[in-house]
Amino acid sequence: MRKVCVVVTARPSWAKLEPVCRALQARADVELQIVACASALLERYGRVVDVIAAQGYPIAEQVYSVYEGATLETSARETGALCTALAGTFARLRPDVVLVMADRHEVLGAAQAAAYSHLLLAHCQGGERSGSVDDKVRDSITALADLHFPCTEGAGFRVYSLTGAWDRIQVTGCPSIDVAREAHGEPPVTAEELGGAGVPIDLSRPFGVVLQHPVTSEADEAEAQMGATLHAADESGLPCVVFWPGQDAGAEGVSKAIRVCQTQPGERFHTVRNLPPHRFLRFLTHASVLVGNSSAGIRESSYLGVPVIDIGSRQQGRERASNVVWCPHDAGRIAAAMARQIAHGRYPSSPLYGTGDAGPKIAEVLAHVRLGVDSRSVRV
Amino acid sequence: MRKVCVVVTARPSWAKLEPVCRALQARADVELQIVACASALLERYGRVVDVIAAQGYPIAEQVYSVYEGATLETSARETGALCTALAGTFARLRPDVVLVMADRHEVLGAAQAAAYSHLLLAHCQGGERSGSVDDKVRDSITALADLHFPCTEGAGFRVYSLTGAWDRIQVTGCPSIDVAREAHGEPPVTAEELGGAGVPIDLSRPFGVVLQHPVTSEADEAEAQMGATLHAADESGLPCVVFWPGQDAGAEGVSKAIRVCQTQPGERFHTVRNLPPHRFLRFLTHASVLVGNSSAGIRESSYLGVPVIDIGSRQQGRERASNVVWCPHDAGRIAAAMARQIAHGRYPSSPLYGTGDAGPKIAEVLAHVRLGVDSRSVRV
Amino acid sequence: MRKVCVVVTARPSWAKLEPVCRALQARADVELQIVACASALLERYGRVVDVIAAQGYPIAEQVYSVYEGATLETSARETGALCTALAGTFARLRPDVVLVMADRHEVLGAAQAAAYSHLLLAHCQGGERSGSVDDKVRDSITALADLHFPCTEGAGFRVYSLTGAWDRIQVTGCPSIDVAREAHGEPPVTAEELGGAGVPIDLSRPFGVVLQHPVTSEADEAEAQMGATLHAADESGLPCVVFWPGQDAGAEGVSKAIRVCQTQPGERFHTVRNLPPHRFLRFLTHASVLVGNSSAGIRESSYLGVPVIDIGSRQQGRERASNVVWCPHDAGRIAAAMARQIAHGRYPSSPLYGTGDAGPKIAEVLAHVRLGVDSRSVRV
Amino acid sequence: MRKVCVVVTARPSWAKLEPVCRALQARADVELQIVACASALLERYGRVVDVIAAQGYPIAEQVYSVYEGATLETSARETGALCTALAGTFARLRPDVVLVMADRHEVLGAAQAAAYSHLLLAHCQGGERSGSVDDKVRDSITALADLHFPCTEGAGFRVYSLTGAWDRIQVTGCPSIDVAREAHGEPPVTAEELGGAGVPIDLSRPFGVVLQHPVTSEADEAEAQMGATLHAADESGLPCVVFWPGQDAGAEGVSKAIRVCQTQPGERFHTVRNLPPHRFLRFLTHASVLVGNSSAGIRESSYLGVPVIDIGSRQQGRERASNVVWCPHDAGRIAAAMARQIAHGRYPSSPLYGTGDAGPKIAEVLAHVRLGVDSRSVRV
Repeated sequence: MRKVCVVVTARPSWAKLEPVCRALQARADVELQIVACASALLERYGRVVDVIAAQGYPIAEQVYSVYEGATLETSARETGALCTALAGTFARLRPDVVLVMADRHEVLGAAQAAAYSHLLLAHCQGGERSGSVDDKVRDSITALADLHFPCTEGAGFRVYSLTGAWDRIQVTGCPSIDVAREAHGEPPVTAEELGGAGVPIDLSRPFGVVLQHPVTSEADEAEAQMGATLHAADESGLPCVVFWPGQDAGAEGVSKAIRVCQTQPGERFHTVRNLPPHRFLRFLTHASVLVGNSSAGIRESSYLGVPVIDIGSRQQGRERASNVVWCPHDAGRIAAAMARQIAHGRYPSSPLYGTGDAGPKIAEVLAHVRLGVDSRSVRV
Repeated sequence: MRKVCVVVTARPSWAKLEPVCRALQARADVELQIVACASALLERYGRVVDVIAAQGYPIAEQVYSVYEGATLETSARETGALCTALAGTFARLRPDVVLVMADRHEVLGAAQAAAYSHLLLAHCQGGERSGSVDDKVRDSITALADLHFPCTEGAGFRVYSLTGAWDRIQVTGCPSIDVAREAHGEPPVTAEELGGAGVPIDLSRPFGVVLQHPVTSEADEAEAQMGATLHAADESGLPCVVFWPGQDAGAEGVSKAIRVCQTQPGERFHTVRNLPPHRFLRFLTHASVLVGNSSAGIRESSYLGVPVIDIGSRQQGRERASNVVWCPHDAGRIAAAMARQIAHGRYPSSPLYGTGDAGPKIAEVLAHVRLGVDSRSVRV
Repeated sequence: MRKVCVVVTARPSWAKLEPVCRALQARADVELQIVACASALLERYGRVVDVIAAQGYPIAEQVYSVYEGATLETSARETGALCTALAGTFARLRPDVVLVMADRHEVLGAAQAAAYSHLLLAHCQGGERSGSVDDKVRDSITALADLHFPCTEGAGFRVYSLTGAWDRIQVTGCPSIDVAREAHGEPPVTAEELGGAGVPIDLSRPFGVVLQHPVTSEADEAEAQMGATLHAADESGLPCVVFWPGQDAGAEGVSKAIRVCQTQPGERFHTVRNLPPHRFLRFLTHASVLVGNSSAGIRESSYLGVPVIDIGSRQQGRERASNVVWCPHDAGRIAAAMARQIAHGRYPSSPLYGTGDAGPKIAEVLAHVRLGVDSRSVRV
Repeated sequence: MRKVCVVVTARPSWAKLEPVCRALQARADVELQIVACASALLERYGRVVDVIAAQGYPIAEQVYSVYEGATLETSARETGALCTALAGTFARLRPDVVLVMADRHEVLGAAQAAAYSHLLLAHCQGGERSGSVDDKVRDSITALADLHFPCTEGAGFRVYSLTGAWDRIQVTGCPSIDVAREAHGEPPVTAEELGGAGVPIDLSRPFGVVLQHPVTSEADEAEAQMGATLHAADESGLPCVVFWPGQDAGAEGVSKAIRVCQTQPGERFHTVRNLPPHRFLRFLTHASVLVGNSSAGIRESSYLGVPVIDIGSRQQGRERASNVVWCPHDAGRIAAAMARQIAHGRYPSSPLYGTGDAGPKIAEVLAHVRLGVDSRSVRV
């Protein structure tokens, strides 16, 4: 039986790999091997490996590779460490195909370990542009991979430019849209499922969502940037759910801006720490508007048709559907854009990032593609 | 003063990096930092780091990263180990630019360490095609690099396809041609300088050269392949200098084929273990024909105009000038090709792989290119 | 109201343009202008302009541009003549968008007339490979066009390489698949609808189809090539419907081979001159196997799942689904391939050349794309 | 003997084709056939065909193809007319190779006539970017051509993207640089050779040159744009030679701005109608600064090292060497840039657009490239 090894290096990647793993798991002709590594094993990132196991997936190996202290140097060290360790893992597990996701620095280590071990390497989310060193890492992984599952046609074109091998590319859409499609059809999130603190929110009436992460290279401005967004959100008159930021540099500034609001008289924000991906999308699909710089505004929201204000540079370069309006960090312009988006209402679902069947499509190719390095195609 | 760090990972790369290092060393506006690592430090590969030091170059750091036992797994481990270690090296040396060469697996580790450390990364010999996993590794390094010095226009075109950034590519030719140009103008090698064993050879009269390495993936056929070549060489009537092979899988078979010849009556081969690059080219430039599968037949010989028979699959995919005739491993066809090439005589020098000024050209760009990741061009 | 001008230059193009015209005609926001020219007006090619008018489409202009005597020179003259004449037509009709199809030489003339008149130019079937000067003409039209509707993802990748403009490319599939989808769901063709001569055929039982055109550059071998195919078809034991060839050089040889068979004792061929596209596909979808070198074997049959033997060089370079087996002009190999394909039976429908909704997709983009030369995208 | 047909369609193209024709004419292995057509035959464009004949070149045919009245429609008609007529010319002359230059609309007609006649087609100046429909026409010609002689490496990369055929591309530099190299070594132009009117100018002392054409799409602003340039030139204190514009839409405005200056007290301009290319470059090479929007500021000046102010949008997209400073149409900024450029003085010669040997290089390839459509390379 064909063995497919899926490498999970971080919590956000799992949300995108899960639909693929589910489809692989459902097949009789494939044995799924999940290797969890890097921050997927760490408590302070929520140990997604435990979530994976709790969902009933088998964990073939766990590989620790994160160094204490996040610096430029440690990301290089971690990549090296992961490459070194996975070389041993692959020698033990002997998979036929290895699947990796996206562009985090350590993923290149996994890709190298697979390529040097002469294993068939498949890659999701290649060919996108987002600026910064991520573009280089992503393209570098594409250069090592044999099979490519880009999310958009534009990304597929770029993968073609990089590889020249059109028959090894299948534009499948992003697996995150599979989750969005599922969530779309389910009952709305209840107040209990939402949890959180601050002003209570009535989810049966129109509400907005604020989800804004710090931009690493603009960490010093994070507080002012979040301040402008919250100011505009407040002005909109719409009750809003505000999410606390992740852990990147600048997170403290974002949090501070939220706390400042909470102490002001008349503020109308409900705050939430975090929701599991599926529940988050069930929640998001009913929002009147999403404000901030989350990738969910670009990807999942395009499918869900949620009106979005994308603020600042974080998602720059990403392809976007017509539901997204861009704004700089300027409270006045954000407020004006919110007014327009609220007035516009829901957009038609866009197929830009997929139609919700990426997982089964990818699983189908991985199950049937000819092994051997020279003669294979993703086409049926 | 601008600091340029050159990473040397193996003996053959040094032959190509030396002209660049010489040109950098000669500049008042550059501080050269040589980091020697991987097999460049190992006795059984001739410890080229000692050669470098003896030539008067400063060795900034030595980094051990080779694992005992050459398997698919160890090459992945070594790349990881080198990436990890060089991250520390770069943090200590703080270079402005890092230069790497070609496509050996561990070079990708060096490239990653530089890219993740947000250093300006320059790469020589990108964009070539040679089949095998080397193509992937080479393209992957190109994806990480900021500045590209491909050897041929064809390779430059491919780098452009990969990167889309024409103003960061300068087709400089291969630095190995710098050595060839130098060697071209110097007095012929004497019998003493040549050394070796077997039938004595008169270098003032026409002679042939046989230089054939085993092909890793065809190791079992190595002896028969070398047998065919030597049979044809013998039949040519031309006295020949035969080089012993390197250490790759199959080397034993090649060596055995040579030894079998040595014991035959009337054989006319002189055998040589190895020559330093410069001396080798002074020797090669006077040969009537070069037979085998060495890269010198494709690169340096194109500049020198030496007639070449390229045999088998090892150099497949490489661009070649008109001095090269390809043959399969068939004694009859090799003999016929040798007769034609000997009758043809010397070819005009081809600029395909350069005109002998790659070192100064590369040094000039590295000294003057604007630092900072976003706005720079290799053009003056 | 937006005016879309569709240029029809030949009978076979109309079969592909019709689904687009139907979708355009059905829209309230578009005025359709059909310009019929070149061989679409000529009696000896069946004057498809009369068919178009009989189907209820408005003919805006008719432009004669075919020279008597088909030589290399006349195809150049015709292109020039069509370009010249259409410049006037466009000045009169003032369309907002011009749509052209495929790669016939005169289509480049139409494309030029549109581009020089600064009209928005849309092109179907760009990016394919078929060898010969057609590739050049097709790419040259792509270079002039603003909007691209390639049929396959592979063709889309190539259009991207040519233009670099991913947001002006939409892979819609081939409109010919729209016809195939429609035909697929309709009742089988009756003997009356089929018509023809020779041995009567029972369409309710398994039958094969032979459809083989002469290859212009191999005109001298046309008779022998058709002989081999008919010999194999005869040997298969399957009753076969054989179509007479088109009018290209070599057609006489193909016809002669058919007539020779007709005079032989025990032959089992029914012969047919021609069927309208829709009826042909209703007929084809029930065939046990299609033998020959028609593009219908590559395109429509991939959707219909009909087993195909593609013979010789005519369709070389075309992307093909798994329903196609290739054979050289060798009776023995054709017979063996037929046996395998008949045993295999119907294939699953492949989406390679589209899913049958190209017409409406193209019409939608043409109706909504922003006019003006600089800022437009085919994406919603 | 191999027949090479060079198609000359306009006066400016001849300046670039002449170095190639001279090199072809000098060869014993080539028969040169010059076909003069389009505006090359017209009195009001200076009938360059007479110049060609006076230089001793044989004119094989003259083909009239220009319609009276320059509109969008006539450029389409002219292209068609030229294609039609040249199909006959090529049938008569039977050349082995056809060479065309650059991107004027009618050149595509010539390219088509050659491609459809299955002649080997060579193209100079492909792959450049200049905005407007010229880019489409240029790329369309590239798609039809078999051999490509782009002027810069960047243009070569783009031709590669378009064609994927690296061995049919040779970056030769622009033949206009051959003329510049020649002119560079010759004695300065005398006042008699310069001619002209207005304030007398002493060519032995520092002087500036103003050469500004109207931009067709900004014809209404031509007078104001020229006014700003002349104002800045006046302010520089440097005596200037001002050239009258060509005949494009807006020329009247440019001329008016010059005449206004001539009537002002204290003006310091000398005006010149036109100089033959070679004499113009002998003149230009001694200028302290060139101001305006002529292509000579981008191409020939880069080789000559003349400081240049490039104004406005006309040369936008062109690659430029470090001798060029760009300015908008703003008298103050132009004056400031002139001051900086005059202070800077001459630049080192840049090889960006070539090193002055394009003609012989192109002739060499045309003389030796293998004929036949499938197997040929521009490399030796």
